[in-house]
Amino acid sequence: MTSRDDPTVGELSEGTILRRILDRVGPSAAVVGPGDDAAVLAVPDGRVVATTDTLVHGPDFRLAWSSAFDIGWKAAAVNLADVAAMGARPTALLVALAMPDDTRISFVAGLADGLRAACDELAPGCVVEGGDLTVSDTLTVAVTALGVLDGREPVLRSGAHPGDVVAIAGEMGVAARGLELLFTRFADSDGTPNALTSEAFAERLVETGDATAVTRQLRPRPPIGMGPLASERGATAMMDVSDGLALDATRMADASGVTIDIDVRCLGPDAARALSGGEDHALLATFPAGGELPEGFTRIGSVHDRTHAPLLVDGDPFQGRGGWDPYRDWDTGRG
Amino acid sequence: MTSRDDPTVGELSEGTILRRILDRVGPSAAVVGPGDDAAVLAVPDGRVVATTDTLVHGPDFRLAWSSAFDIGWKAAAVNLADVAAMGARPTALLVALAMPDDTRISFVAGLADGLRAACDELAPGCVVEGGDLTVSDTLTVAVTALGVLDGREPVLRSGAHPGDVVAIAGEMGVAARGLELLFTRFADSDGTPNALTSEAFAERLVETGDATAVTRQLRPRPPIGMGPLASERGATAMMDVSDGLALDATRMADASGVTIDIDVRCLGPDAARALSGGEDHALLATFPAGGELPEGFTRIGSVHDRTHAPLLVDGDPFQGRGGWDPYRDWDTGRG
Repeated sequence: MTSRDDPTVGELSEGTILRRILDRVGPSAAVVGPGDDAAVLAVPDGRVVATTDTLVHGPDFRLAWSSAFDIGWKAAAVNLADVAAMGARPTALLVALAMPDDTRISFVAGLADGLRAACDELAPGCVVEGGDLTVSDTLTVAVTALGVLDGREPVLRSGAHPGDVVAIAGEMGVAARGLELLFTRFADSDGTPNALTSEAFAERLVETGDATAVTRQLRPRPPIGMGPLASERGATAMMDVSDGLALDATRMADASGVTIDIDVRCLGPDAARALSGGEDHALLATFPAGGELPEGFTRIGSVHDRTHAPLLVDGDPFQGRGGWDPYRDWDTGRG
Repeated sequence: MTSRDDPTVGELSEGTILRRILDRVGPSAAVVGPGDDAAVLAVPDGRVVATTDTLVHGPDFRLAWSSAFDIGWKAAAVNLADVAAMGARPTALLVALAMPDDTRISFVAGLADGLRAACDELAPGCVVEGGDLTVSDTLTVAVTALGVLDGREPVLRSGAHPGDVVAIAGEMGVAARGLELLFTRFADSDGTPNALTSEAFAERLVETGDATAVTRQLRPRPPIGMGPLASERGATAMMDVSDGLALDATRMADASGVTIDIDVRCLGPDAARALSGGEDHALLATFPAGGELPEGFTRIGSVHDRTHAPLLVDGDPFQGRGGWDPYRDWDTGRG
């Protein structure tokens, strides 16, 4: 493909690149959408939920493994999960894109398609309503997600009460397994990533679970709709599990001043990875005892009066690895 | 100073760095401030104004010229200006900070101080309510600003009517002059920037205007309070002048379907730089004829029925340089 068919962003004006993106992310649903100094969004109950999370080339993704679509999808998904974890419904994304001059416009288009697809599939009604383009040596996708509470109170991580049931919606440890597979089966011994072609994908991921795990690492599917549902059904606390169940449950226990006891039998066959593996963006929530859990949530433990240990596993203080750390679990290489 | 006195962010946990930042940005004014999955902000009239703008090391600032405080200040100021340009009052910033591992914590503290100072001085009541920390080879500060309309309608760039007066609040061409001074007096012949020590600053910027221009390039002072004021006083259109008056007035004329005629005598002694120079973040607005302009705004032209040219200067189609382009006016070097 020649540069004429697929020019670099350095060959195009900012206005042209913007139009190419906005053509793909779908029609605005805002009071004022893209094109003015700022977007104006309706938040009928007078409160807006807002969060920002950034993906950086190297620490957060490899271009050998992630397509532009994957990067756009993941950048949307991780932000949507933070809005959902407040019990809110995501309504808008703002996308700040910093790209090397030699980035192809087809790559930008793929990224926009991934952003839109993640919104459409995970949080229907959520639309890219604004953004910013900058030159950078390091491809960086900084997304801000905004959402509405529809009259409900936000569900904080500090609301767990002794006696509550601990439950989870979404996957645990799958994305971490995917990352392990990428580093072991799709990298040279020196860590250089191999291109994730469909042939390599099929050859090197022979178990069904392996292929799913890699796909989930690249395109996580947090259960966004479960956030508002949990809120409606009386969740007392909720948070997004981005750094592993052990670390995030500890954070919830500390914020709530309680001890959380995880029942390891409820974590499935890969309990160790469920406890330590990050990036699934499951929703961890607590509900009053005695009620029925909303469909999609599974009981995994219980809340107790605070003891010296914030987190117990089968009644014993958790001794395992403390959880996911993006500074440690991805190295700082690129490719 | 030893690493122990001033550790790098790579030596500290994410939680420690976050606490260090949050200690400095001031108390939250939100329904839910920093520390949960997302912030929750009150927007009593049911509409939120939202914008995002990113500063990247190299294309947007040089570490030889900008202190951490300057970078934090500018990252806040440029976003506050976009909110003000809608006629809105900024209430919250979200700050996504991507930093090399070897960034000193004192640098992060300075950046937080700059963010807070810009809010306190330019938009009192606006507070950093959330953010994100990531590792990156390229220092990147992506800010999202949120604001409220206090019951007013947003002022769009598309509302200018024939017969309106064109007015501006804030400076024109000053920041561009500052950038020229930096590249001519604080860089080697190969473009390598020289450290902007207070001695060099005093020696090489002998005219008062020179020192002001460099200071404004590094710490722009957009007239944030003039945005809501212009809206109250009936502004028909408004926008932030970030890319030079000529280019931004052309954008306003195109969005409004009118022709804007600039009276060059109103642009002061440095009219050429006022027309082409970016980064001052003045507010360009149109008002119905016959009224008194709000204090702080100066008349610079008039709005006419659309002709073939969107922009006239003293009645003639503008032939000068089209305006500021961040891909051209900063090179992609670093330092």
